[in-house]
Amino acid sequence: MIPLNHWLVACTADELAALGERPLGRTIASNRLVIWRDAAGAAHAVDDWCPHRGAPLSLGRVEAGRLVCGYHGLQMGCDGRAVAMPGQRVKAFPAVRRFPVRERGGFVFVWPGEPALAENAPLPALRWLDEPGWAYGGGVYRVQCEARLMIDNLMDLTHETYVHAGSIGQREIDEALPVTRVEGDTVITERQMQGVTAPPFWQAALRAQGLPEDARVDRWQVCRFSPPSQVMIDVGVAMAGEGAQLAPDDRKAAAVVVDFITPETDTSIWYFWGMARRFRADDAALTERIREGQGAIFAEDTAVLEAQQANLLRHPDRRLLRLNIDAGGVQARRVLDRLVAAERAAPATVATPPEVPADPR
Amino acid sequence: MIPLNHWLVACTADELAALGERPLGRTIASNRLVIWRDAAGAAHAVDDWCPHRGAPLSLGRVEAGRLVCGYHGLQMGCDGRAVAMPGQRVKAFPAVRRFPVRERGGFVFVWPGEPALAENAPLPALRWLDEPGWAYGGGVYRVQCEARLMIDNLMDLTHETYVHAGSIGQREIDEALPVTRVEGDTVITERQMQGVTAPPFWQAALRAQGLPEDARVDRWQVCRFSPPSQVMIDVGVAMAGEGAQLAPDDRKAAAVVVDFITPETDTSIWYFWGMARRFRADDAALTERIREGQGAIFAEDTAVLEAQQANLLRHPDRRLLRLNIDAGGVQARRVLDRLVAAERAAPATVATPPEVPADPR
Amino acid sequence: MIPLNHWLVACTADELAALGERPLGRTIASNRLVIWRDAAGAAHAVDDWCPHRGAPLSLGRVEAGRLVCGYHGLQMGCDGRAVAMPGQRVKAFPAVRRFPVRERGGFVFVWPGEPALAENAPLPALRWLDEPGWAYGGGVYRVQCEARLMIDNLMDLTHETYVHAGSIGQREIDEALPVTRVEGDTVITERQMQGVTAPPFWQAALRAQGLPEDARVDRWQVCRFSPPSQVMIDVGVAMAGEGAQLAPDDRKAAAVVVDFITPETDTSIWYFWGMARRFRADDAALTERIREGQGAIFAEDTAVLEAQQANLLRHPDRRLLRLNIDAGGVQARRVLDRLVAAERAAPATVATPPEVPADPR
Repeated sequence: MIPLNHWLVACTADELAALGERPLGRTIASNRLVIWRDAAGAAHAVDDWCPHRGAPLSLGRVEAGRLVCGYHGLQMGCDGRAVAMPGQRVKAFPAVRRFPVRERGGFVFVWPGEPALAENAPLPALRWLDEPGWAYGGGVYRVQCEARLMIDNLMDLTHETYVHAGSIGQREIDEALPVTRVEGDTVITERQMQGVTAPPFWQAALRAQGLPEDARVDRWQVCRFSPPSQVMIDVGVAMAGEGAQLAPDDRKAAAVVVDFITPETDTSIWYFWGMARRFRADDAALTERIREGQGAIFAEDTAVLEAQQANLLRHPDRRLLRLNIDAGGVQARRVLDRLVAAERAAPATVATPPEVPADPR
Repeated sequence: MIPLNHWLVACTADELAALGERPLGRTIASNRLVIWRDAAGAAHAVDDWCPHRGAPLSLGRVEAGRLVCGYHGLQMGCDGRAVAMPGQRVKAFPAVRRFPVRERGGFVFVWPGEPALAENAPLPALRWLDEPGWAYGGGVYRVQCEARLMIDNLMDLTHETYVHAGSIGQREIDEALPVTRVEGDTVITERQMQGVTAPPFWQAALRAQGLPEDARVDRWQVCRFSPPSQVMIDVGVAMAGEGAQLAPDDRKAAAVVVDFITPETDTSIWYFWGMARRFRADDAALTERIREGQGAIFAEDTAVLEAQQANLLRHPDRRLLRLNIDAGGVQARRVLDRLVAAERAAPATVATPPEVPADPR
Repeated sequence: MIPLNHWLVACTADELAALGERPLGRTIASNRLVIWRDAAGAAHAVDDWCPHRGAPLSLGRVEAGRLVCGYHGLQMGCDGRAVAMPGQRVKAFPAVRRFPVRERGGFVFVWPGEPALAENAPLPALRWLDEPGWAYGGGVYRVQCEARLMIDNLMDLTHETYVHAGSIGQREIDEALPVTRVEGDTVITERQMQGVTAPPFWQAALRAQGLPEDARVDRWQVCRFSPPSQVMIDVGVAMAGEGAQLAPDDRKAAAVVVDFITPETDTSIWYFWGMARRFRADDAALTERIREGQGAIFAEDTAVLEAQQANLLRHPDRRLLRLNIDAGGVQARRVLDRLVAAERAAPATVATPPEVPADPR
């Protein structure tokens, strides 16, 4: 479980665009939503349920920015109330639940919790939009594991040596112990490797930067978890002894691994992954090459996580070890547990769908 | 739920023929049946269960009209009693339930209710067999929705505008309000559209009839629901102002959409669909062309109905609207509820399978 | 249910070899195991669970005979205790359950019951290894039926006439009544057919033996069930009147059908099938030809058994007949019931996995 009074990435602008005039049906935090753009281009999300006969609105079409049910033509408004229906007065029709929506940087966010709290809640910081000189590329996977297993995965990069042996793993990761600290609701796990050889992924980055790929480098990984379920990881390599992250831009290759984890159900997630980088930001071909490489690497994680999830479901009573390398995930779970408990303790203000009258005629 | 003391279409003669010497296994109203023809060509249906070791009889073969179990060769009679088995005396073998069977017009009907009531119960009227000048073509789909959702669909053709926009839908359907009346157990919903342009399917029919496809026409749809779950729809177009259904045969294209809906389980059906027509009845190529077109159109319905069913199962507590356009389906449900209640109130005479003794040796 | 204090075939050496450096994950008697070979080539089996974070060890690799978890590199020992993990002291790590393993004749056996009882328990006799002049070939199928249905199948070969009409079935099987006897925990069902024509499979064997394929032969089938779930079947044909099984080697074709049935779950099995023969044992091409033919024949059984299992699960309350031909299966079930009851009555010594402490740091 994760706290719900937060903005969650529901989909990307690319996903909406690929559907053309069709809306997107997607389950977010166990709510089945339909997402579409109005005539002005603003995205909206409501319960994927036509109040007429319960058909999914996501089977319908978007006509001039209006969501039209594909069964009998009810037109749904962005506030969850029917706007029109051929031959009918829709005023008394029950509304369906609407979900607050925001959009930034190609991400469409929805708010699955109490709508009134959404208004003043800031979106997650997207550093690569706020500062010049960055490039971003990414994608989305559906993974059959709960959000916490993915957070564990991203807060303990020890797994790179084993899961990603051919790309970003290297033995030195095992030798450099990570250090974890908690700052409010943020959990930070940092690992520094000094004077190592870059693994294949970073050799390619060094080449792209015009630096020698076989040089001794200092490598860093700084994982930052923030609620409800995002992990931003500062990663990079710099010529050895020149200050690692603090080295001059032309002596390093630096990037941020971007991970937005959106629960679909209690045992599955939408995993929005990407990389924002500060080297050769103009090189679109490089962006695409990195995106493809990262997509292949992160697919290796999904296989392990799905098998782990299946094993945990088989043995719900077994406890897991919490080693020093697990501290990041363990602390992130504590933050989540605290926030979920606080939401539950709060007055029951989470929106419930409006009651549907028995027979409104 | 539908009432069970009725003839239900279990399969078509074509389906049996396609299997050659193999019997057909099919679930009808939650009963798993095996259906086969005896040496005289008469169809029979019994529980798909070999009384010896429980293997499905439908895995077996039909040899000279006898159903032979594919595991150890038990021969099953059309009364549900074993006829013979190599090396065994079968007299004391427990019988399996048999289901009354009738056949007409290429449809094989079974009676899932009390067998004694079957004898004098008439088959559904198949008008195209009783009058000269008709042609018929059709097919069968398995659809994962309950029977009532399909009945709703067929009693409210408003959906044609949205689900079948490219074939039989047209905006004027929305504008012509349907009128519903109940005559005993029959529910009739009628819609008349005057002076409209024919949609693509009916333009093709006009061409086939030798009439101008772009003429103004009067179009009619008269949906007739009869228990337990059939809907016959008089449809057609006539040159405008010549009396619609009453226009002379050479001034109209008229047909009956035939729908036999057989529950497989509580959430799935066998949907026997077809069209009987009174124009160019000798044209077999036209029959086949219409069958293919209708098959494509009705596949559009199945996608919507399966998504609607999944949504309803997700939210069993939500109520649906009942608008004027839904009156046909709403009235049909009332008829069904009344008949089901009456069957339940009747003395418990529905056949139960005979008790199997523990060890008959 | 079958008794667990027995050696069960878990996999073949061929299956392990095909995986190269990857271990094998397999469920045996509802325990999910990982099986691998150490540096000396000895096979081991432990719970498919990494004590660190619950990932399946079967996703990992075998490096120099050590099983390495594919997530964070924990090295698992053959006793179920962690051997090492980068950057960690593993001494206090909880152990996972280990399963005794033996190997012989290309079969890897595991002991799913009380480990202490395994030590002195003999492996099943593999006659074709202990006597000269035999050849063996076989394979493995996963079948979705409980072990008892497969035992029934193999103890009542009457089904050959119906399931295997094109290969080993013949009408005379139905005419020759089998005789069943029980000797301790062994159940023997014997059928003798005198002066018959060989069915296609045995005609091929006669040809291979240099005997006339159309000769009158005496055919025998002697099925031997032994706990927990193996059936060895002496089969063959000899020139008629020369003593059947006792005929001189050059006047008969004789073989043993080998069946090791290992429960995967309560409703599925790993079925290790094969044939050991005493004619033309040097002819490897013949071994392969027989293996292919037998594989095709036994696939016919799996289709029937899976359909039978599905039918039985649909009607758990229905009883089956127990005819004279079923005596072998019925007696085998009695042996199994007796042994299972005895195991349950014994002091609860079956190993449970060690308790995992909440937080061992």
